[in-house]
This record gives sequence, C-alpha cells and structure tokens, in this order.
Amino acid sequence: MKLLRVGDPGREIPAVLGEDGVAFSLAGVTADIDGTFLASGGIDRVGRELAGGSLPRLDTAGRRTGAPVARPGKVVCVGLNYRDHAEETGAAVPERPVVFMKDPFTVVGPHDAVRIPRGSVKTDWEVELAVVIGTEARYLTAPAEAAGHIAGYAVSHDVSEREFQLEYSAQWDLGKSCETFNPLGPWLVTPDEVGDPQRLGLRLSVNGEVRQDGNTGNMVFDAAYLVWYLSQYMVLRPGDVINTGTPAGVALGLPGTPYLRAGDTVELSVDGLGTQRQKLVDA
Amino acid sequence: MKLLRVGDPGREIPAVLGEDGVAFSLAGVTADIDGTFLASGGIDRVGRELAGGSLPRLDTAGRRTGAPVARPGKVVCVGLNYRDHAEETGAAVPERPVVFMKDPFTVVGPHDAVRIPRGSVKTDWEVELAVVIGTEARYLTAPAEAAGHIAGYAVSHDVSEREFQLEYSAQWDLGKSCETFNPLGPWLVTPDEVGDPQRLGLRLSVNGEVRQDGNTGNMVFDAAYLVWYLSQYMVLRPGDVINTGTPAGVALGLPGTPYLRAGDTVELSVDGLGTQRQKLVDA
Repeated sequence: MKLLRVGDPGREIPAVLGEDGVAFSLAGVTADIDGTFLASGGIDRVGRELAGGSLPRLDTAGRRTGAPVARPGKVVCVGLNYRDHAEETGAAVPERPVVFMKDPFTVVGPHDAVRIPRGSVKTDWEVELAVVIGTEARYLTAPAEAAGHIAGYAVSHDVSEREFQLEYSAQWDLGKSCETFNPLGPWLVTPDEVGDPQRLGLRLSVNGEVRQDGNTGNMVFDAAYLVWYLSQYMVLRPGDVINTGTPAGVALGLPGTPYLRAGDTVELSVDGLGTQRQKLVDA
Repeated sequence: MKLLRVGDPGREIPAVLGEDGVAFSLAGVTADIDGTFLASGGIDRVGRELAGGSLPRLDTAGRRTGAPVARPGKVVCVGLNYRDHAEETGAAVPERPVVFMKDPFTVVGPHDAVRIPRGSVKTDWEVELAVVIGTEARYLTAPAEAAGHIAGYAVSHDVSEREFQLEYSAQWDLGKSCETFNPLGPWLVTPDEVGDPQRLGLRLSVNGEVRQDGNTGNMVFDAAYLVWYLSQYMVLRPGDVINTGTPAGVALGLPGTPYLRAGDTVELSVDGLGTQRQKLVDA
C-alpha cells in the first residue's frame, strides 16, 4: 500500500492509493498518519478498509501532498553509508554507522519549496531511502528482527548546508536542521510493495541534469542492520524516520562544487517510492 | 512562577507553585504544559489565575514529578560551552557553539531512574541550565531579542555515554540519545524569577561526593547568544529545549574516570531552579 497525506500544511487529509493510483480518503479511519496510527495497527486497518471497497474517493487534483508521516518524533540520519559517497567526500568507509540527527520539524512535503538559509552558499542535495518505524524497537537481538518494526519506506531529501555542517564545528546537526531541509514522500510504501529494500535505484537531478544515480545495494550498513544497531543505543518509536544515507554525486564532491541556488529545481526518486520535485527559494 | 507536571508518565497533571510552595492544579486551565500552551500565552494566563486565587490545590505528596514540559519537539545541545569543561576534556574552547541533538524522547522526570544502557561502561553525568522556548524564534536579529522567546529555565541532566559518543564515530548524538538520558525539571521557572541567567551556580554530586560546582557566568556563549545563534540555522519552536552545556567535573575528565554504575545516586541543582535526584539502574 501507498499511504499519503493531502492538503495544506497542518491540515492534511490521510489517504491511501488504490491499485489504479486513485486516492481514497482515510478521514473516517484515522485523524492522521502518525506514530499513534502506526502503533495501533493502523496500516492493517487501512488494508481491510481498502479491500472492503467502501472508502470514499479523494480528489487530489491541484492539491498539495504533505509528508506521509505527521510529526515524526525524531529524524535519525546515517552518514557516509554508501561506499562511493564516502570516497567523494574524502572520508574513510566507516566501521560503525555514523549517526546524527535533524530537527524533526524540517520534515515537509515532497514538492514543497526548499529554503536556502540566509547567508548560505553551500546548500547541497542528498537523495535517500527513509525507513519509517512502525512499532517500538528497543534492544533488538538481531537485524532479522528489524522487519517487524518497519512500517514502510519513503523517499527522503536530506538537504545539507556544508558550511554549517562541516566548517562551523565538528558536529553536523547544525547544517542538517535548517527549515524545510527534509522533504519526505510522496508516499509511505509498505514493505510488501517495496520488496528487497537493498535493490532500489535512487536518482537525483538538478535543473534536469542527473547528479546522483545510485542503488541501495551499495549501502555499507543495510536498513535492517541500521534499525537493529540504532535500537541498541536509543528507543525507536512509531513514526520515527531513519535517513539511511546518500550515494555519490552531491555538490560537495563534484568539480566546481555546484551548490544549490534560488531558482534551481531538484527532482529525486527511489524505485517504487515515487518522485519529489522542489523549487529552491531564499529563506 | 514555577510550573510543573505531577503524576505518572504520560498522565501528568499541569500545576503551578504558589509563593509558599503549595501546588495548584492547572487542569482547568490547560490540558498540559507543552508547546501549544506556551505559544498561546499560557504562562500569562496561569499568572492571572494564580493571582485570582481560585485555582484548586493539588496534593503532591508521594507523587512523581514529570518533566515540566511535555513532548519537546527537539532538544538542542551545546557542547564545550564552559571554559573549564573544554579544558578537562582536552578540547579547545570553541570559536562557535558546538551544536548537537538528543532524541527528545530521552526527556524524563527529574527524579526518574536513569538507565545505564546495555553494554555501557562509560555513562557520565552533566548538570546543565536548560532554556525552554516560549515563542517561535527564526532569524533573530540580535541576542537582545532572545528574551522575548524564552519561556523559562530548568535544570537539565545531559546524561552521556562517552564510548558511544566519542569512540563509535565522530558524531556525538548516539551517546546522548539513550533512553532516560535527559531528566528535566523539577520546574519550568519563568525569567522574572530567575533574574540574570548568567549568574547561577550549578552543582552535581554522585553518592554524596561533589563532582561539579560551576557557575553559568563561565559559559563561553551565554543563553541569549545561543538562542540568537541557533535561530540563524534552525527554527526554534515553543517547547523546544536547549541544553546550554556543562561545567567541569564530569567523569571523563576526572582521575580514574569514575563512570556511573547501577546503584549510584546523582543529585544535581541549579540556583533557583530546584534539585534533581536520580538512581542509576541497568537498562
């Protein structure tokens, strides 16, 4: 299934896509798609309602798509998790996941404008596979247990300001937490539809020029490993988002470091998870 | 005023202390002390109700105290922000604030047990002054504007696992985000009662032995500067918490590195903001 949220910011209507791509409203099933919904078996409930055939259609024409999960409690990121990206940034392939965080308030809709922070000259892109947690994960005994705690996957844009991230201190969060820096969606896609999450192509282009073209098969630590690993050090809760890292091709690693400017358009997609498209504007 | 939340986890009753230390219930004024309450002028409302003299008394005897703010949207931390602490850890005094984050779910009550993570041998203490945001702060023009965005102050225990923080990768968040790692409170104290936030003594003892005895006057970047600085890079929202750093005396910097063990008791206080007391237990 593909779950989504349609409408103005803060007033999105939860919805699900039918097999032919038609949207059905979930307003009668849940107030929102959030941690409470996911923790209470909401996805199974939606599956039954969808199969029952009685959900009302939702007209999405001309309407904004929000992030597919409302108010994540945290956004955990994993850095340098593709071998090619570690190389392009001059960093060694890490022996353990490199874990940092973004302000969860950075999560916006997949086609919302991304704001270049005031004073920024190094705003960069990163297409990523996001894991959305479905049930609490705490001290999992093995990566094989992770699947039972994953609600689904989504496209995530881990927008990054390299000067704030890398030059202002050794801690990265500052350059990851700027307003609008985490477009998410368009959909939360359930694992049964995704298949093997380690065989997904990821692509990102800027103004039509392909910049990233990777595959989740090149991750250093795969999604299940990351869920298991993180659960040893923090409690993962329903609705939490894990950004699993980006493949090569970010501006930081390209000749001439062609960072984003107001007016640029970024388009990014992950196989089976849909496409995002953002206009860059000045904050 | 001193605001607090009394009761079992997730079911706390909002309350305010009268001048003689008697608690009054705010259940008729607000559902909770959270970002929505703070953003809607809740503190002024409580002030009027308290002055009006019609708030019902709340019996707090034998009842748990929760964190004074429910569900912070984020917890932003500033590292190495006291000159003496930077020295003891062998780090240079930073030229800019060192900014990292904790999982906001780590926030617990001031006397709740702190869990030593499984496998941890380097769980450490850090007494801090926390700033709680009252109204959205975004691109403030000067530190002098910060006061208008601060709801109040609280004691914060920024518990830290040094192996996870410093040895597993160069990013600190992993060792800061373990379950129960941010006792907060007992009170949210409004700025009028705190006076100058840069003249507060901070103390922490372990099993009765004084380990930290500092003063906020020794901060490298003061609270107002931090609010202004952070607002240039992220949006600070009502209910967000800023941990402003710890003075010297953490286990990491002491001879023999006497890290915390199950059974230890930590007691910490900040002038005018109350006292926390936690038992260490195994996770």
